[in-house]
Amino acid sequence: MQSLNLDLGERSYSIHIGSNLLSQPSLILPLLTGKQVLIVSNTQVAPLYLEQLSSSLSQAKPDLNVQTCILPDGEAYKTLATLEKIWDKLLNEGFNRKATLIALGGGVVGDMTGFAAACYQRGINFIQIPTTLLSQVDSSVGGKTGVNHPLGKNMLGAFWQPSLVLADTQVLKTLPSRELAAGIAEIIKYGLLGDLVFLEWLENNMAGLIKGDSQLLAEAIARSCQSKADIVAEDEREGGKRALLNLGHTFGHAIETEMGYGQWLHGEAVACGMWLAADLSRRLGWLTLAEVERVEKILLAANLPVKPPEEMTLASFLKHMAVDKKNIDGQLRLILLKQLGQAELVEFNKLPLLEECITDALTKTHSL
Amino acid sequence: MQSLNLDLGERSYSIHIGSNLLSQPSLILPLLTGKQVLIVSNTQVAPLYLEQLSSSLSQAKPDLNVQTCILPDGEAYKTLATLEKIWDKLLNEGFNRKATLIALGGGVVGDMTGFAAACYQRGINFIQIPTTLLSQVDSSVGGKTGVNHPLGKNMLGAFWQPSLVLADTQVLKTLPSRELAAGIAEIIKYGLLGDLVFLEWLENNMAGLIKGDSQLLAEAIARSCQSKADIVAEDEREGGKRALLNLGHTFGHAIETEMGYGQWLHGEAVACGMWLAADLSRRLGWLTLAEVERVEKILLAANLPVKPPEEMTLASFLKHMAVDKKNIDGQLRLILLKQLGQAELVEFNKLPLLEECITDALTKTHSL
Repeated sequence: MQSLNLDLGERSYSIHIGSNLLSQPSLILPLLTGKQVLIVSNTQVAPLYLEQLSSSLSQAKPDLNVQTCILPDGEAYKTLATLEKIWDKLLNEGFNRKATLIALGGGVVGDMTGFAAACYQRGINFIQIPTTLLSQVDSSVGGKTGVNHPLGKNMLGAFWQPSLVLADTQVLKTLPSRELAAGIAEIIKYGLLGDLVFLEWLENNMAGLIKGDSQLLAEAIARSCQSKADIVAEDEREGGKRALLNLGHTFGHAIETEMGYGQWLHGEAVACGMWLAADLSRRLGWLTLAEVERVEKILLAANLPVKPPEEMTLASFLKHMAVDKKNIDGQLRLILLKQLGQAELVEFNKLPLLEECITDALTKTHSL
Repeated sequence: MQSLNLDLGERSYSIHIGSNLLSQPSLILPLLTGKQVLIVSNTQVAPLYLEQLSSSLSQAKPDLNVQTCILPDGEAYKTLATLEKIWDKLLNEGFNRKATLIALGGGVVGDMTGFAAACYQRGINFIQIPTTLLSQVDSSVGGKTGVNHPLGKNMLGAFWQPSLVLADTQVLKTLPSRELAAGIAEIIKYGLLGDLVFLEWLENNMAGLIKGDSQLLAEAIARSCQSKADIVAEDEREGGKRALLNLGHTFGHAIETEMGYGQWLHGEAVACGMWLAADLSRRLGWLTLAEVERVEKILLAANLPVKPPEEMTLASFLKHMAVDKKNIDGQLRLILLKQLGQAELVEFNKLPLLEECITDALTKTHSL
């Protein structure tokens, strides 16, 4: 097991990465603040791992009141209406402000459970047990929680840090390959935005990663979490550097919003978004064509899309990008690449360049 | 104008108390974080003061985008559904994370606007302009925000501090006398829980206060806000001392929840709750009968109820008190009075005493 620490003063917490952590209640019990525990999961994950987690906790500490709440699966259900199910359960069970929520699932479960914890009785303890690669390397770390609104992704939420993150690599064995690839998209992101050495390591090890090699995945998760922890420790509330973690996300959110949440996996949309960000960086003269091809090559090697969905249009991209949370007073702000391994937040004014970039991407039928 | 400061490090803010502050945009403009402002008010307050506030801001700074959102009036609408109207408006107007929300109204408007600000794009700036006495002396200060759930009052919310509180005593001129009295209940609370000298001052000046004497009210508001600011600065997230501000509230919330929100005003329910807390303290041997009579006398002098509503039963009190946010692992916790001017958080185990206290109150037909 590897352990990292996210240093946020009195809100600091540990991130443990390793195999079979789900069955080690000794990792979890010290972080419980009371005797009431609600495990939130979804219809996909619960049949696989809920019993294992729930019974290991109950056996280790028989006086715990362990309840469960199973949500429908998928980004389409990341809504206020689903959130209310968690709150209803907590209130119906009489859970108090010392209760602990445990998120057992992917990013959607983690984001909603965290937001539910942030608002229940003005904030209670919660623990992240991410079960997808994507959530292990990204959303479970850093305290961003929230739900979608029909007019925009993650528009409602809170910064609310977990007290523990357990990334169990064993659970990745049952992850569909499409979801594994979506997680690798976010791993590639850390290389592109700030760590060229890691990008090269990923290029060299992609074949093993997409096959689900446990040791390679553990290493990739640890390096990704360390990158994220460093950035979040420096800028918890996204006043500056943390925005770089949104590389590819402005385009990606536009795809997710237009397509309806859940049609494209988040990681797939981000992969395509990173390609667009790289190509737009090239049009600014920051990347060479060869570098964009290198970005394309590693994304394709991870079985990720680099071309937007056919249903998208230039207009739909621009509409959704206009309401991105990073924008200030109508000014579009994008994360672009000064060079491979170095991202930058840009107040973007060159609309014709952006339009060309999107239009060409929509019509392209082959690699560059 | 009197100005107090609530000292919370980088989240510190000013509380200004005085006449006609609504028409002084110079107090507000320095606290805006961007050019987008949404004033949230209700159908009761908006016709009286919205235009005055909105136009004074627009005139002072013409490039502001000032929008308004009018909510239905009353505690019955302090719900997630109403909250969504604020978020819908923000998203439909394309408001970004530099936008500012201004709450113009009583405690319901303030609590909901604050919670809307806490969750919109994971937290934006907000300003409190309380227009009821109750919200001026209590809910606008200290950053408790939230909405009710059918199973409990303020069960969903956040700690989210405003960047400014403006208590304009001029607006109290149009406040119905029942609401003025409800505000005085919370003022009396500060005397009872921690300031015997202030309690005596209130006893001496109650006749003028209930007539709406501006100077007396300004003094009472300032002393109340100072008490609250001192307590909140010491214990922002209610780990300890802040709970004392809940004197009378456990009983009061039970009344509000059982009666349906809005039948009894919050201050009325708290008044009755403070009487019950005083009487229960007497049954513990902490107060004398004469002291409970003194509590009863000042509440009656302020035209406040000291007897629970006829619709309540012992069972309904106990049911609602069992889900109070202060309770931990089923342990009832109450704020009681060690003596007049000194409240204490008590883990309360003497159920028969509590049952007698409530039963006697329900059946009493006259003063003690």
